[in-house]
Amino acid sequence: MGRIAVIYDSLTGNTRQMAELVAEGARRLPAMEVSVRGIEDSDAAEIARVADGIALGSPTNLGVMSWRMKRFWDEQMAPHWMSIDGKIGCSFSSAGAWGGGSEITCQALNTILMNFGFLVFGLTDYVGKASSAHYGAIAVREPREEDVRESCRKLGERLSEWVGAFIDRDPALHPLVREPGRKRPGS
Amino acid sequence: MGRIAVIYDSLTGNTRQMAELVAEGARRLPAMEVSVRGIEDSDAAEIARVADGIALGSPTNLGVMSWRMKRFWDEQMAPHWMSIDGKIGCSFSSAGAWGGGSEITCQALNTILMNFGFLVFGLTDYVGKASSAHYGAIAVREPREEDVRESCRKLGERLSEWVGAFIDRDPALHPLVREPGRKRPGS
Amino acid sequence: MGRIAVIYDSLTGNTRQMAELVAEGARRLPAMEVSVRGIEDSDAAEIARVADGIALGSPTNLGVMSWRMKRFWDEQMAPHWMSIDGKIGCSFSSAGAWGGGSEITCQALNTILMNFGFLVFGLTDYVGKASSAHYGAIAVREPREEDVRESCRKLGERLSEWVGAFIDRDPALHPLVREPGRKRPGS
Amino acid sequence: MGRIAVIYDSLTGNTRQMAELVAEGARRLPAMEVSVRGIEDSDAAEIARVADGIALGSPTNLGVMSWRMKRFWDEQMAPHWMSIDGKIGCSFSSAGAWGGGSEITCQALNTILMNFGFLVFGLTDYVGKASSAHYGAIAVREPREEDVRESCRKLGERLSEWVGAFIDRDPALHPLVREPGRKRPGS
Repeated sequence: MGRIAVIYDSLTGNTRQMAELVAEGARRLPAMEVSVRGIEDSDAAEIARVADGIALGSPTNLGVMSWRMKRFWDEQMAPHWMSIDGKIGCSFSSAGAWGGGSEITCQALNTILMNFGFLVFGLTDYVGKASSAHYGAIAVREPREEDVRESCRKLGERLSEWVGAFIDRDPALHPLVREPGRKRPGS
Repeated sequence: MGRIAVIYDSLTGNTRQMAELVAEGARRLPAMEVSVRGIEDSDAAEIARVADGIALGSPTNLGVMSWRMKRFWDEQMAPHWMSIDGKIGCSFSSAGAWGGGSEITCQALNTILMNFGFLVFGLTDYVGKASSAHYGAIAVREPREEDVRESCRKLGERLSEWVGAFIDRDPALHPLVREPGRKRPGS
Repeated sequence: MGRIAVIYDSLTGNTRQMAELVAEGARRLPAMEVSVRGIEDSDAAEIARVADGIALGSPTNLGVMSWRMKRFWDEQMAPHWMSIDGKIGCSFSSAGAWGGGSEITCQALNTILMNFGFLVFGLTDYVGKASSAHYGAIAVREPREEDVRESCRKLGERLSEWVGAFIDRDPALHPLVREPGRKRPGS
Repeated sequence: MGRIAVIYDSLTGNTRQMAELVAEGARRLPAMEVSVRGIEDSDAAEIARVADGIALGSPTNLGVMSWRMKRFWDEQMAPHWMSIDGKIGCSFSSAGAWGGGSEITCQALNTILMNFGFLVFGLTDYVGKASSAHYGAIAVREPREEDVRESCRKLGERLSEWVGAFIDRDPALHPLVREPGRKRPGS
C-alpha cells in the first residue's frame, strides 16, 4: 500500500485548498494511503520522510516558495538528506495573479525535491481547454474554477499512479495502462 | 529618441498579436521609435542590434522558446555578443494553457537577454484583478481577455519608460515619476 | 532488460564526450541495454521513443540548450507526446565556463522531459570534493577532470538504477539498497 | 553619487567573503558609495531601500536561497514593494560543489529582484579561462581561486557601471565606453 503525503504551507488558506484537492485526486486510487499536513504540523517531517510520494505546495511569494516552506526543508528535512532518495515528487502553488510566478515557484519546489533525490514529474494532460499542470498545478488565489480544481486532483491522481506503478510495482496503475485513450488536445 | 524593438516568433499568430500589443504600449511614450519584427524578417537582427530596448516574444513550446527563436540568437545575433551590452530587455510568451510553461519560457528568454548583457525586468504592477507580468507577459492562445491585452501593453510601456529614463536620460520618464499614485493591490 | 538511451547534441565534441561517460556509467548495471545517439542520427527519435530511461545532453548556448536539440523535440519527438509518459530522465551539459549557464541548461532540458511526462532526477551524491550533479551533470568544455568525468558516469549509473528499480521492478537495484553506506559529505 | 548596497546572508562566511569582493569591485568606480550589510544587520532593509543598485548574495541551500534571505524579502522588504522600482540588481551565491545549484540560486535571487521592479543583469565577460558570471557570480565554498574572486569583483564593478551610466546618467561609465577593447574569448 503506497503512502502519499501532501505537504503544504498556506497563509491565506488558498494553497491549503489546493492541497485538499490534490489529496482528493490521490485517493482516486484506493490502494493509496493519503496524508495531508501543513508544515507547522508536528509530524509533517516524519510523514514526509516515510512517504513514497510527496506533493509539495507553497504560496507563490516573489516567484519563490514562502520562507517557511524553505525553512522546513533547510531545517526539519535536512537530517534526512541522502537517506530518502527515490521518492516520487510533484508541486503546486497559488499566486496572486496569472503571470505572478506560480510556475517558477513550482520549478523551485521541484528543485528542492530533486536535491533530495526525488524523481519529479508534471502532468502531460490538459485539464479542460485552458488549464494544465505541466510543471506543477497552479491557481490564482483560491482554486475556484473547475478546471483549476481538476488540475489539482489530476496531479494527485498521477502521483498515486506513479507510486503505484513504480514503488508498489503494480503495472496496472501506470497511467498509459489506466487511461489508454489519452489523446492530444484537438486530436 | 529611444529605439524600441519588439522581436517575436509566431507560428499560429498568437505571439504576433502579443507583439502588436506590446508595441502599442511602447508607443504610449511619444519619444520612442517602435519597430516590430518577426525573426524571419530579413532585418530583424539589425533592428535588434541597434535598439535601446527589446521586448522578445516566443511561443511556449515544451516550456522553452521555439527552436527558431533559439536559432535566431545562436546564429544571427551571436556575432554581436560582447558589443551590445546595456540594452533594456523583457519578454512575452503565449502557451496552450495556464500552467503550460509560459512563465518558464519568459525566464528562458530573459536568460538569453542577460547573456547578451541586457538588463531585464518584469512588471511589478498587477493589471486588473488576476493578471500580472512579473517576469514577462503571458497569454493562453491569443491575447483575448482585456486584462491580458493590457498586461502586454503595460510591459511595452514600461520598456519605453526604462529606455527613456536610463538610456535617453530623461528622469521624467521613470515610472515612479510618471505614475506616482501606484498602489499595492488591495490598498 | 531495461533500455537506456543517451541522446545528445554536440558541436565541438565536448558534450559527446560527456555522453560516452554517461553511457559508461549506465553500463555498470549489466542488466541494461545502453544506446548512445547524436540527434542527427537517423534513428535517434526511435531510440528515444522506446527507451525506459533517457539521459539528455546539450551544449550550453546562451544558458539554454542548442537550437538543434530544441528542434529535435519540437519536430521529431512531438508526435510521441502523450504516448511515452513514465520514462525516467536526466540531463547533462557542457559550457564554456563555470557560471556560464550549464545548470540552467540542464534545468531547461529537464523541463522538456517533464513536459513529455518523464520523471526527472539529479544526483544527491557529491563526486569528489567539489563536484556534484544535483540537477544534471555539468562540465566546462571537455570533461577532463576525474571528478567531472565520474559525475557523468554516476549520473548514468543512477539512471540505470532507477530504471532497474522502477521499470524493471527489481528492488535490489535501488541505490539505497546497492549503496547502503552512502554518507553525507563530511560525516 | 550612486549608492551601491551589497546585501548578503552567510552561515559559514563563504558568501560574506564573496560580498566583500563584490564591494571591492564596485569601489573601482570612485563615484560610488558602497555599503555591505548582512541581512541580520539592523539597517540592512533601509540600506537596500535607498540604494540605486543592489548585489544580492545567499548561500546555495537545496538549489534555492537560504530561508533567512527569503524571509528578509518576504517580511522586511515587502512594505517597499511598488515603491522602489528601477534599481539595478545582480546576484551571487556560494555552493558546496560545482553543479550544486549556485546558478539556479542566482536565478531565484534575480527573480525576487525582478518582482520588486529591479533591472537585473549578469556579466557577458569571461574572467580567466573557465570562469564567468553570466547570471550571477558563483563560487564553491570560499572564493579562493583568483578567477572566482575576480568574477565577484567584476560583477560589483559592472553594477557600479550600470548605476553610473543609467541612474547617475554619466555616459562615460557605460562599460562599452570604459572598456572599448572588450573581446570575445578566443578572438
